[in-house]
Amino acid sequence: MRTKIALREKGVEFEVQEEDLWNKSELLLKSNPVHKKVPVLIHNDTPISESLIQVQYIDETWTDAASFLPTDPQSRATARFWADFADKTISFEGGKKIWGNKKGEEQEKGKKEFLESLKVLEAELGDKSYFGGETFGYVDITLVPFYSWFYALEKCGDFSVEAECPKIVAWGKRCVERNSVAATLPESEKVYQQVLKLRQIFGVE
Amino acid sequence: MRTKIALREKGVEFEVQEEDLWNKSELLLKSNPVHKKVPVLIHNDTPISESLIQVQYIDETWTDAASFLPTDPQSRATARFWADFADKTISFEGGKKIWGNKKGEEQEKGKKEFLESLKVLEAELGDKSYFGGETFGYVDITLVPFYSWFYALEKCGDFSVEAECPKIVAWGKRCVERNSVAATLPESEKVYQQVLKLRQIFGVE
Repeated sequence: MRTKIALREKGVEFEVQEEDLWNKSELLLKSNPVHKKVPVLIHNDTPISESLIQVQYIDETWTDAASFLPTDPQSRATARFWADFADKTISFEGGKKIWGNKKGEEQEKGKKEFLESLKVLEAELGDKSYFGGETFGYVDITLVPFYSWFYALEKCGDFSVEAECPKIVAWGKRCVERNSVAATLPESEKVYQQVLKLRQIFGVE
Repeated sequence: MRTKIALREKGVEFEVQEEDLWNKSELLLKSNPVHKKVPVLIHNDTPISESLIQVQYIDETWTDAASFLPTDPQSRATARFWADFADKTISFEGGKKIWGNKKGEEQEKGKKEFLESLKVLEAELGDKSYFGGETFGYVDITLVPFYSWFYALEKCGDFSVEAECPKIVAWGKRCVERNSVAATLPESEKVYQQVLKLRQIFGVE
């Protein structure tokens, strides 16, 4: 999602090839032999792995559109710090502690960890439109895919993200007004239905 | 160590303030309130956290000396990929699986993981002088501090890194010929003595 949003922000056309992760293609194994993971971005026949490295590559390759990172080194370091924090703390694995458990101690622990990290991000966001200020950028691209999971986490965990982190939710709504994000993020209801299927597979319900 | 090497490569003078990690200073807690971790780089009264973000900051701030990253986006992505790989796989925690265990299954597992990752890096290095080619750069700065641990790991784990990864060891020796690295890395024997103390504290011996 990060890669698609970045490409769409830059107005770059691309083709998507979905992968069956239980039966990975030769192209994937050849393109990312170290991690064997999606996403891989292939540009000029050269594969680039790891979503945040792809976003930086896209930013440095298509320089006509606005940059995702500010120009001064200090603001760049700040953006990299918060992108790294969001990447490490707001994750699929973190979300799974909520939807992958029935009500109880483990799920409560998952909710606590998730909301603690999100509140740190909310404090950093403050009253700005985006993490970098007025410009949608690197930290926003890193975090916003997870916004489409909020509804599923709320339903599974019986809590309200908006009650705990109103500024983050307002930020998410602001991001979704952008074509790049709207065209990329799945509908919240669809994510929830997929999570319900995963809960069945993992025997949570 | 990464931060010191980067500053020395750029010819920047700096002062070091050591931290007692069992009694962290007010300055550390104020400068890195999120992670409360060293190292923190303070420049123009502004704190910057996370060593790899510091290295990028140093590279972008002192631009008179050679850049740590190449200029073309594709080579930059490659450097970022391998720095990320080295950072994640060759770590204090990984080394601890070797020195933090007596001879036995757990230690063998630690050796296997360490050497597997190091061999991936050895394959990427190939016959180049440095990871980026002829220029000492971002991946070298990320990985080389760990070179000072090799001797301690070899002694604790009863194996030879050079027998398994001769090109990596030759690369390490090449790096240590640079003033920036020589002035930063502790002597291997000193690291080993500290590891022996840690083994006593953790009750390994």
